[in-house]
Amino acid sequence: MDNVTSNLQHCKFEVPEIIFGRGLLSQIGSCARRLGGHKVFLVSDQGLFHAGWVDKVMHSLMEAGLSFIYYDQITCNPKDVEIEEGAREYFRHGADVIVGLGGGSAMDAAKGIAILVSNGGRIRDYKGPDKIIRPLPPLVLCPTTCGTGSDVSQFAVISDTELRCKMTIMSRCVAPDISLTDPDTLETLPDEFVCTTATDALSHAMEAFFSVASTSLTDVHAIKAMRLLTKSLVNAVRERTPDDLENLSRASLHAGMAFSNSLLGIVHALAHPIGGLYDANHGSVNAILLPEVLRYDIPVVTEKLPELAWGLGHTGKGETSSSGEMVQDTVETLLDAIGAPRSLRSIGVVREDIPDLARKALKDVCIVTSPREADEQDLIRILEKAF
Amino acid sequence: MDNVTSNLQHCKFEVPEIIFGRGLLSQIGSCARRLGGHKVFLVSDQGLFHAGWVDKVMHSLMEAGLSFIYYDQITCNPKDVEIEEGAREYFRHGADVIVGLGGGSAMDAAKGIAILVSNGGRIRDYKGPDKIIRPLPPLVLCPTTCGTGSDVSQFAVISDTELRCKMTIMSRCVAPDISLTDPDTLETLPDEFVCTTATDALSHAMEAFFSVASTSLTDVHAIKAMRLLTKSLVNAVRERTPDDLENLSRASLHAGMAFSNSLLGIVHALAHPIGGLYDANHGSVNAILLPEVLRYDIPVVTEKLPELAWGLGHTGKGETSSSGEMVQDTVETLLDAIGAPRSLRSIGVVREDIPDLARKALKDVCIVTSPREADEQDLIRILEKAF
Repeated sequence: MDNVTSNLQHCKFEVPEIIFGRGLLSQIGSCARRLGGHKVFLVSDQGLFHAGWVDKVMHSLMEAGLSFIYYDQITCNPKDVEIEEGAREYFRHGADVIVGLGGGSAMDAAKGIAILVSNGGRIRDYKGPDKIIRPLPPLVLCPTTCGTGSDVSQFAVISDTELRCKMTIMSRCVAPDISLTDPDTLETLPDEFVCTTATDALSHAMEAFFSVASTSLTDVHAIKAMRLLTKSLVNAVRERTPDDLENLSRASLHAGMAFSNSLLGIVHALAHPIGGLYDANHGSVNAILLPEVLRYDIPVVTEKLPELAWGLGHTGKGETSSSGEMVQDTVETLLDAIGAPRSLRSIGVVREDIPDLARKALKDVCIVTSPREADEQDLIRILEKAF
Repeated sequence: MDNVTSNLQHCKFEVPEIIFGRGLLSQIGSCARRLGGHKVFLVSDQGLFHAGWVDKVMHSLMEAGLSFIYYDQITCNPKDVEIEEGAREYFRHGADVIVGLGGGSAMDAAKGIAILVSNGGRIRDYKGPDKIIRPLPPLVLCPTTCGTGSDVSQFAVISDTELRCKMTIMSRCVAPDISLTDPDTLETLPDEFVCTTATDALSHAMEAFFSVASTSLTDVHAIKAMRLLTKSLVNAVRERTPDDLENLSRASLHAGMAFSNSLLGIVHALAHPIGGLYDANHGSVNAILLPEVLRYDIPVVTEKLPELAWGLGHTGKGETSSSGEMVQDTVETLLDAIGAPRSLRSIGVVREDIPDLARKALKDVCIVTSPREADEQDLIRILEKAF
């Protein structure tokens, strides 16, 4: 913790070129072309293919005079073996630029493939911070959910199938050259995924804001994400109005810009081993953990609470105690309103695994920037409460 | 105007790699080296040399194993001839990376030199939007004032000595690779320049927020800049406390991130011809124009006023009329408190020149994103009121 804390006044902020707007998926071809690509390795998934979005991207690539290879052999919580197979396909076809279209799984798979084709070896060689030596091929990422933030982040999360745990790869190299969001793609996202990915964005915003590496450059984006989510999440889930869905896309982008530069905390440190062990939905795991981790963190982040409460629309006088309650209430009310799962038991977590999950979380890179230090017993207590 | 307005829902956001923190000037050498440079063309000014900051940079470059050429033949509102001479010096010494250390003048001069050494010709060939074809040499910019925003912006403003007008060069190419701010450098900035450059940041934030090209990505930074300025400007000027000075540095950075992506408005469109004709201080000109342009703009930006008033700490219920008054009052009170000049007459503007200044402003690229359209007569009226 000491290193992180002592660098607090020094801040770094990096985001890729960002393009955001309805209908802009048609610009993917020109983006890939201006990065110097000729043969695109397009990573996406079958759901997006059936919804017609992959076809739209293929048309855009053809219109830009680019040939492409389509790769969709990836699953939820993308696996090391899928990444390694993708890298072989990339070489087999002589691709020279990568486009990732999808949620966190497709985009993190695209990042993983990009790492391997320029750095070689196995994907687990790059686990942890700053293991990547050679620059990646040109990379364009297009999110089609409203939560991952992978399109702007310096992280890739891949499942290690031997250890049955998610590994976090962290490097400025894995941020793409271009992040392109077309909020129209949310129209075909099933209700369930609107909920779970938006709760992922909420966790990103909260953890980024309380991170010991947060700065004014990240806080403004974290607060904006939370404002947009409190304004539009319930409506977007219930009514699916285009404006509310666009606000969720926008919230995801703001939250991604925040956490990519301030990193995260205990929610994500715990969510990674849980996701790896049970192949559980990442947003659902976050939704369950967030209220408990917030309760754990709030006593040590009192200085930041009035600003957050103010950001969430609280018009009181900004006393710390009422701000803390207000923040906790806002998050729990929001999660209840959209019917997010509220217990680890309900998503298949086995009580006997809790000590092992806590031990794995202590090794996750996300724990480093938690505002409140935690040992194994602290993490076990949080998991028990959320069980 | 139509083109800009019709693209409103499509947003682009690009900022360079940002490094911010006290004492970080010592990192310039490693920044220049990792961009691939061997021989640095260091652009700065005599004031910074005498204050010891240039020496600090030179040491950092030497420690990183880089040789360098020092160029300080630039004046306030840097002139085309100075840029062209700088480009010849760059070639004469075989430099391959540029570091700009200073206020807007030194940094815009560094940008201008970078344009010429890779694109050739005369600097006026690049006036207006998107005239630059070839990528610039690696560029690191370090602001030592609290206003320009040139260290993150896609603009360079150079004085055309034949036309006696400032020209605005606008291109994504002119944003540097790295923006490095060391707020310690403000310690030696004379009071007068703390005032004038901070009022430039205030104008950037206000115009960026009301620009027709503003988006949620730029608004969060504009509002943060205004919050920091309302909190720290008066104290920084009166007491020169390090924390308040750092807040001004930070405000300048946030405002720069906003206006570089949302562009500006009438204040800057008018300030450029005035600065060019009288070689007047840019921040002083902005301080005089801002209250009048705000009065002109407020009737058409009513939708955004409650958010701005809220951002400025107004705890009322957000009615449009009171928000407008609050914003106008806050700005005028702030400018009065720091003793900013309040009339064009006081800085040497000649009344007979007003029609010509209005005509030149209509051709400035900044007018395009003004929230309220303006013809020659409108601009004359604004100038007369500010006279």
